[in-house]
Amino acid sequence: MKVHGDKNSGNCLKVKFVCDRLALPYEWIEVDTRNGGSRTPEFLKLNPWGQVPTVVLDDGRTLAQSNAIIRYLARGSDLIPPDAYLAAKMDEWLFWEQYSHEPYVAVCRFHMVYLGKPASALDENLVKRGAAALDHLERHLGQSRFMAGDVVTLADVALVAYTRLAHEGGFDMTRYGAIRRWIGETENNLGLAPIG
Amino acid sequence: MKVHGDKNSGNCLKVKFVCDRLALPYEWIEVDTRNGGSRTPEFLKLNPWGQVPTVVLDDGRTLAQSNAIIRYLARGSDLIPPDAYLAAKMDEWLFWEQYSHEPYVAVCRFHMVYLGKPASALDENLVKRGAAALDHLERHLGQSRFMAGDVVTLADVALVAYTRLAHEGGFDMTRYGAIRRWIGETENNLGLAPIG
Repeated sequence: MKVHGDKNSGNCLKVKFVCDRLALPYEWIEVDTRNGGSRTPEFLKLNPWGQVPTVVLDDGRTLAQSNAIIRYLARGSDLIPPDAYLAAKMDEWLFWEQYSHEPYVAVCRFHMVYLGKPASALDENLVKRGAAALDHLERHLGQSRFMAGDVVTLADVALVAYTRLAHEGGFDMTRYGAIRRWIGETENNLGLAPIG
Repeated sequence: MKVHGDKNSGNCLKVKFVCDRLALPYEWIEVDTRNGGSRTPEFLKLNPWGQVPTVVLDDGRTLAQSNAIIRYLARGSDLIPPDAYLAAKMDEWLFWEQYSHEPYVAVCRFHMVYLGKPASALDENLVKRGAAALDHLERHLGQSRFMAGDVVTLADVALVAYTRLAHEGGFDMTRYGAIRRWIGETENNLGLAPIG
């Protein structure tokens, strides 16, 4: 399996985290998205959206959309709850991550890290909605050890990917004790070195 | 099961479409979202995000996020491909719908239908991204009968919900022959009266 990704992208790192955690063999192909690497004619044949991550399975079939990829790769593993209701709660967070967290928390970081803007130049609406997403996470993680129950699932993988980088998008993570506790426990489970 | 929803909302209608198609018994509880019905203290106990649709199962447990709800309700049915790869392609579209389609196609309609704006007053960026999403659908449906293969899946349910209402958001659907063919076939499969 080949994973086409950008190691600065949380969406791409989700795939790496799952492969490493489950010891799935893969070749990582670094795509230079800042310089059009995901917009070449060759790449657009793999993914017409021109997005990373994109996975090419051994039989040549492709998969896109980070959360769809990890849901496929982790099938049958302990990262997806066997109980249907808990799996649905995991899915709630996967969809929430893409709708209400990534477009704000990750996009603020993109503007600062990729485009070089200072925090003071960020769009106020993005910052406000990113903080609202983090506030929501903090409330949830004050009551629950992990996102969808007592064990690490794909919901933790998906949400930790950009949350552990949120300080790079100007968010003050010292405010979020429950999130910091959860980042540490999730990093530990995934075998990641602490980033904070 | 109780489905709390707003019948003007495509996200809520996804749940109705799946329940009706699979003959799942449910009680629909109409929530007046325009007048704060999803922000009352009682509602926030069911869903701290204050969003519809929200489902309350017979044992009192709740589920939110439209695509997570339909994925749960349709488990084991013909609306989810038994093949893991095809199910992952279905998931691709479910995540794409929430990230790249709904925030533009549905939000333009929201501004016109809920807020009463004329099409000329819509945010140009929303209109441009909505048209890009529809262009992408048109290309895909020119090559594929349904979203994830030859049969109707949750990807069709999720995408048809707002695509069949896109004209109410100012999009000129006469440009999209393949989309119109697919809307008709999907409506027929779901037992819906044509809306266009």
